[in-house]
Amino acid sequence: MPRHPPIVVIAPDSFKGSLSARGAANAIARGLRRVWRDADLRLCPMADGGEGTLDAVLSRGGTRVSVRVHDASGATCDAAYGLIDQGRTAVIEIAEIVGLTSESNLSVDVGQRTTLGLAELMRLQLDQGIRRFVIGLGGSSTNDGGAGLLAGLGLVLADATGRTLAPTPDGLAALAAVDATALDARLAQSEITIISDVNNPLTGAHGATAIFGPQKGVASDRIQTFDATIDRLATLTEQAIHVSARDNAGAGAAGGLGFALQLLGGKLRSGADVVADLIGLDAALKGADWLITGEGRSDTQTLLGKTPLVAARRAAAAGVPATLLSGAIDRRALPELGQYFAGCFTLAFGPLSLEQCIADAASLLADRAEQMARLRAGRAPVAQSPED
Amino acid sequence: MPRHPPIVVIAPDSFKGSLSARGAANAIARGLRRVWRDADLRLCPMADGGEGTLDAVLSRGGTRVSVRVHDASGATCDAAYGLIDQGRTAVIEIAEIVGLTSESNLSVDVGQRTTLGLAELMRLQLDQGIRRFVIGLGGSSTNDGGAGLLAGLGLVLADATGRTLAPTPDGLAALAAVDATALDARLAQSEITIISDVNNPLTGAHGATAIFGPQKGVASDRIQTFDATIDRLATLTEQAIHVSARDNAGAGAAGGLGFALQLLGGKLRSGADVVADLIGLDAALKGADWLITGEGRSDTQTLLGKTPLVAARRAAAAGVPATLLSGAIDRRALPELGQYFAGCFTLAFGPLSLEQCIADAASLLADRAEQMARLRAGRAPVAQSPED
Repeated sequence: MPRHPPIVVIAPDSFKGSLSARGAANAIARGLRRVWRDADLRLCPMADGGEGTLDAVLSRGGTRVSVRVHDASGATCDAAYGLIDQGRTAVIEIAEIVGLTSESNLSVDVGQRTTLGLAELMRLQLDQGIRRFVIGLGGSSTNDGGAGLLAGLGLVLADATGRTLAPTPDGLAALAAVDATALDARLAQSEITIISDVNNPLTGAHGATAIFGPQKGVASDRIQTFDATIDRLATLTEQAIHVSARDNAGAGAAGGLGFALQLLGGKLRSGADVVADLIGLDAALKGADWLITGEGRSDTQTLLGKTPLVAARRAAAAGVPATLLSGAIDRRALPELGQYFAGCFTLAFGPLSLEQCIADAASLLADRAEQMARLRAGRAPVAQSPED
Repeated sequence: MPRHPPIVVIAPDSFKGSLSARGAANAIARGLRRVWRDADLRLCPMADGGEGTLDAVLSRGGTRVSVRVHDASGATCDAAYGLIDQGRTAVIEIAEIVGLTSESNLSVDVGQRTTLGLAELMRLQLDQGIRRFVIGLGGSSTNDGGAGLLAGLGLVLADATGRTLAPTPDGLAALAAVDATALDARLAQSEITIISDVNNPLTGAHGATAIFGPQKGVASDRIQTFDATIDRLATLTEQAIHVSARDNAGAGAAGGLGFALQLLGGKLRSGADVVADLIGLDAALKGADWLITGEGRSDTQTLLGKTPLVAARRAAAAGVPATLLSGAIDRRALPELGQYFAGCFTLAFGPLSLEQCIADAASLLADRAEQMARLRAGRAPVAQSPED
C-alpha cells in the first residue's frame, strides 16, 4: 500500500439472506481495523435499486420521512422515503406504497389495485418544492400500466360517455378517452430518475402483464384482457401527451409504472449507478488506496452491471484497485471477473455448509477482510486490535 | 510488489488426502503465472519429516537409490533412500524398512519385529563413505527400543549365559549383558540428524510402548513386559556406551529408535527445519518478494513448528512477507497465525463439501493463488495466460 494509514473505500451490496449492505460494510471494516487501526475507512454501503436502496442512500446522510398515503388497495399506509441533497431530492421505493409483500395490497384482486398512492406522494413532495425524484421500481403488486400514477397527477381517464374511470385494470376496461390538459404542470420542471433492472416493454409477449402479471395474481385467462386494456391506455395517453414510451426499455417495469414515468419525462438508469451517485462514491474514491466491494453471490450476472461491477468501474476510473469479497463466487465467472478485480475472495475458511456461511456471515467477512488487508499490507506481525 | 516480474518462493507442505507438496506447489505456480507470466517462481515443496520427506528433499536435486535389506519381519525388501550433497549425505525414511503400512512387517507379531534392517542400510552407506545421515522416524511398526539397530551396528546383546539374543522385544526378555566393544567405529565420525515430531521419553507412562505400542499391536496386557524389557535394554546399553539418552525428548520415537540413535550421537531436530535446510529454502528466499506456504489443514498445531510456520520464520528472517494458503484453516487459530502470515487463505470459493474440496484441490489452489497474486499486484485487468 502506498501510505500508512491507508484510505479504503468499503462499498458492498447486501449479502442476501445474511447481511444488509451496512452490516457487510461494518464487518469488513472490523476486519481491516485489526490490521490498520488508524486507516481512513470510507463506508459506502451500496444497493442495486431494489430492496435496501433507501437504507444505502441514507447511510451517507439525508433524512428518512414517512407520510400517510393510500396503498394499492385503497387502504391508508405509512410510506417512507428519503430526502437528500439538502431536501431537494426525494428517494422513493414504490414497494413502500404498492409492495407485493404487503398483506393489505394483496387483500384486493390485482384487477382492483392501483398506483394512485404514488401520485399522492409525489404531489406532496411537489408541494414541498421538490423537483428531483429518484424512484426505485422493484417489488410492485400492481399491473395498472401506471394509470393510477397518471390519474393522480391530473390525467383524466374516461369511458365513451365521458365518465371518469377508476385507474385500475378492471376500471379501465371501458377506457375510450384521455385528457391531459390538467396534468400537473410542475412535472415539466422536474427531473425523474427511474431505477429498474427490468428492460421489458409495456405490452405484448414480453410485456409487463405476460411476464410479471402471473406472480402478482393475474390468472392466465386474464392476461390477454389486461394486456389489451394497457395497450389502449398506452395508445390514448401517448396521443394525449405527444410522447411515445411504450416500447422503451423498462416500460414494462412495475406493472407499467416504468411506462407512465417515462411518459412524464423520467429516465431509466441502472440502480447501482444511481446509488453510487447518490452516496457520492466517486468523491469517496478520491485519493483512496483500495476499494472492497462484494455481494452474497457473484456469478456472470454480476457482470451485467450489478453493484460490485459498478463499484469496480468507478474505482478503475479513479485509479483505485478494487477487490471482490463475496459470500460465494461461481468459479466459471472468474476469468471475466478478473478483468475488473484485483483479487476475488469468498468467506469460507474451509469446507462449510451454506447454512453455516449464512449464520456466521459477519464474522467470516471480518476475518476474510482482515486477511486481505494483511496481504495488501504485506506484513506480519501487526498490532492486534482490542475490539472484537 | 516491489518489482516486476516478482520473485515468489512457493513452499507448501502436502495437502493430505489430495495433493503432494510438489503437486500443491505446481498448482500454486499455475495460478501465479496467470497474473505474472514472467515471474521468477522458486518451487520449494516442503515436508515435516514424515511421509513425503524424501520426495520433497529430492525435488531440489540429489539421487534416489534403492537397496535390498531386511524388513522388520526378516523378509527382504527394497528400501529407497536419497543421496544429496554430492553423495555425502544419506536421507533415510525408516518407514521404507520397518513401516507400519507394509503387509510383510505386519505378518509377524510386534514381539518379533526388529530394526536390524536399518543397521544394514546404514552400514552399506558407511561402506560407501557416507558420514552424514538424516533419518526420518515416522510410521514405524517396531517397538524394539532400537535394539535391532544397535545389534546390527555391533552391539552384543546377551543373556546371563552369554548367549547372543535376537534383537526383538521377545528375544530380549532374557537380556542380561551388553557389550559395546564391537560397535562400528565409523559412527563416531558420523553426524546423525534425527527428524521426529514425537517428544516422548523411552519408557514409562509416556514412553514408546505405553503411548505408541497399542497402534503397532502391543496388547494391553503386554505393555508392562515390553516396557520392562526396553527399560533393561536402556540401562545396560547406557552403561556400556557411557551415554545417557533414555529421557531425551524423542527417545520414545519409532518404538525406541529415537533412543538408540541418540545413544549413537544423533541429534533430534524438527523435520520441517531439516527439510528447509536440505532444500535450501534460505537461499531461495534471497531477494524474493513473497513466500507462499500452506498445508491441508492449518490449526493451532501448525504453530507447534509445522512446515508453514517454519517457512514463515525463514521468510521473516529474510525480510520476505509470507502468506498462508491451506485447504482449510481453523478460525480459532487465526489470531496466532496472524502473527506469522501476511494473510491466511483457504481454497473454497463458497460453501463446499470436504469431498469436493479434495477432488478439486489442484484447480481450487490455482484459482486462489491467482487471486492472491492479483491482490498483491493490486491491478486488474492483467494478461490472461494461454495455459490451463
